[in-house]
Amino acid sequence: MTKVSGIGAVEAKRERFDESLRLRSGVELAGFELAYETYGTLNAAGSNAILVCHALSGHHHVAGHYADNPKNVGWWDNIVGPGRPLDTDRFFIVGLNNLGGCHGSTGPASVNPATGKPWGRDFPIVTVEDWIDAQARLADRLGIDQWAATIGGSLGGMQAMQWTIQYPERVRHALVIAAAPRLSAENIAFNEVARQAILSDPDYEAGRRPVRGLRLARMLGHITYLSDDQMADKFGRRLRHGEFRYGFDVEFEVESYLRYQGDKFAGWFDADTYLRMTKALDYFDPAAACGGDLAAALAQAKAKFFVASFSTDWRFSPARSREIVNALVKNRQDVAYAEIESQHGHDSFLMEDAHYHAVVAAYLKGVKT
Amino acid sequence: MTKVSGIGAVEAKRERFDESLRLRSGVELAGFELAYETYGTLNAAGSNAILVCHALSGHHHVAGHYADNPKNVGWWDNIVGPGRPLDTDRFFIVGLNNLGGCHGSTGPASVNPATGKPWGRDFPIVTVEDWIDAQARLADRLGIDQWAATIGGSLGGMQAMQWTIQYPERVRHALVIAAAPRLSAENIAFNEVARQAILSDPDYEAGRRPVRGLRLARMLGHITYLSDDQMADKFGRRLRHGEFRYGFDVEFEVESYLRYQGDKFAGWFDADTYLRMTKALDYFDPAAACGGDLAAALAQAKAKFFVASFSTDWRFSPARSREIVNALVKNRQDVAYAEIESQHGHDSFLMEDAHYHAVVAAYLKGVKT
Repeated sequence: MTKVSGIGAVEAKRERFDESLRLRSGVELAGFELAYETYGTLNAAGSNAILVCHALSGHHHVAGHYADNPKNVGWWDNIVGPGRPLDTDRFFIVGLNNLGGCHGSTGPASVNPATGKPWGRDFPIVTVEDWIDAQARLADRLGIDQWAATIGGSLGGMQAMQWTIQYPERVRHALVIAAAPRLSAENIAFNEVARQAILSDPDYEAGRRPVRGLRLARMLGHITYLSDDQMADKFGRRLRHGEFRYGFDVEFEVESYLRYQGDKFAGWFDADTYLRMTKALDYFDPAAACGGDLAAALAQAKAKFFVASFSTDWRFSPARSREIVNALVKNRQDVAYAEIESQHGHDSFLMEDAHYHAVVAAYLKGVKT
Repeated sequence: MTKVSGIGAVEAKRERFDESLRLRSGVELAGFELAYETYGTLNAAGSNAILVCHALSGHHHVAGHYADNPKNVGWWDNIVGPGRPLDTDRFFIVGLNNLGGCHGSTGPASVNPATGKPWGRDFPIVTVEDWIDAQARLADRLGIDQWAATIGGSLGGMQAMQWTIQYPERVRHALVIAAAPRLSAENIAFNEVARQAILSDPDYEAGRRPVRGLRLARMLGHITYLSDDQMADKFGRRLRHGEFRYGFDVEFEVESYLRYQGDKFAGWFDADTYLRMTKALDYFDPAAACGGDLAAALAQAKAKFFVASFSTDWRFSPARSREIVNALVKNRQDVAYAEIESQHGHDSFLMEDAHYHAVVAAYLKGVKT
């Protein structure tokens, strides 16, 4: 199957920001760069812009493909393009790689100006709030005073929501998909095992690429991205060789899948970025500043909300999305909620599902540009 | 809190079996030893014996304490003893360490007679069926033709059930607790990540103790043993230092708990045993021999069944226990089923819960000796 991007060839861009940025950790970052892409055209009023925020391992290449590499299609291409739910005929779409990322924005692989060497593990820990501050600078640079909408799935949905709290005047709609208002102890526990896999890898300790640790972290991640039902449908107890081999090579197909996903990821993703993305997830908790009262935290938002969850998502279950909805309802804020039947667990937000896409498209049709 | 064992001081015993045992893997084991303990008195007819089967990291020290180490109380002491549900005034209780274990029975740490050196990673993979065969030899040796009951939780419950299929004449009651008729793809996936943590640990590759891998495997295991609710109650998002430290040391209490559990386990458990226990779980699937028809597989059983599950167990959810119950009901076999409300997830089967223990006690009161 050849994927055809909706929008055609696109180009990655970079912006440098020289003013220093004070992070929540207390570290002062002396300027930074953001890699980003844009699709569609910003209107004269600058009022038709949508910010797409990425999840754990995402980046700025949201849609389209690169002219010199047609197979490199953006991670959310199925929802962005002419006539697609994030319609580039109406909207100016912005995707970026977050601070601390490993796709071109300032992060662990960047040179630390204080030492002239790559930051590596000394790169500061960044939070969702820090990302929003950095994204706000990009918005300034692009001439966007107010986003028509912020949108994202999972960790991306947390950013879409945080925008409404941190810069209430700068966002009219927030689309918060497959997200949660904060991680549960179990969510943190999974992140911690993934981090320990990397941190305890002797290669990491020795300053080398922790391929083993990254591989384990990704294998574990994949279990939480899929649903039990989906794994049952996709693999069940199917054997690679049709019989037991009584050894530790691949026997069940699900083992093969996990090893493949782990190996693929470990070959390219930056471990220091991975560690930081999971910490940003752990820390995210906008209600904390209001004594744990999510409604109080969201009360300052002026945006309208679209919240969506997926029936088989057990990483951030529908109940977690309903916490957000209930807080907004309590405040009599404007919120639309869709609980979508889907086989694909947490990954559903990335999938091309007609009902899901129709719901997003319908909501965005009502967003004025 | 000082734990007081119900039955007092007990002693571990060993039996050697010189006749070779052909394993399901095809390997012929030239004799083996089993470590075991017994509590109570076998009656003259040999008709009051109960076999307690252990789970992943369990062993033969089920109840009581050792005279020279009063703190070493058996892992299921709360349910075994005079007047307890597994009443040692009525029953003769047998607990053993399974073949391949690391608590005294023949396993990876034992000497391979063919080489004169410890088996280590060359120890064959053992299955639940192999364990039942070995347990049957122990029963022969102890003068037990027929168990009054076999009982166990989790992987132990699988053994309790497998007895009724493999030796239908030799068991009158099977108590199958917090178990499943086979692992799901997701269950296998978790086992596979744990195995890969061990197998890819450079210390394991180099023939040393894979402390890091065992630690990760156990941390991951603990997430699946607890329930999301229980983790929320026990840890929530509570911080170790009351504030974020923006580093990779322990920040959330749940991280501290997992690291502690991982470190403790990695200090003593045998990696080659751990690898084999997870494979025994993966392989277990009595229905497979009947084309996936569990009812057909159980039709040969002559035992009466007691099946119990726990509301918050997501490793082997109540739905998995109901698969067993439904198969037995389809066959019009005798089965009692209890779905017990509990906070403690999969670990509930080990907990002292008044309702749970009352249900087990009531069932066992009806078991003739």
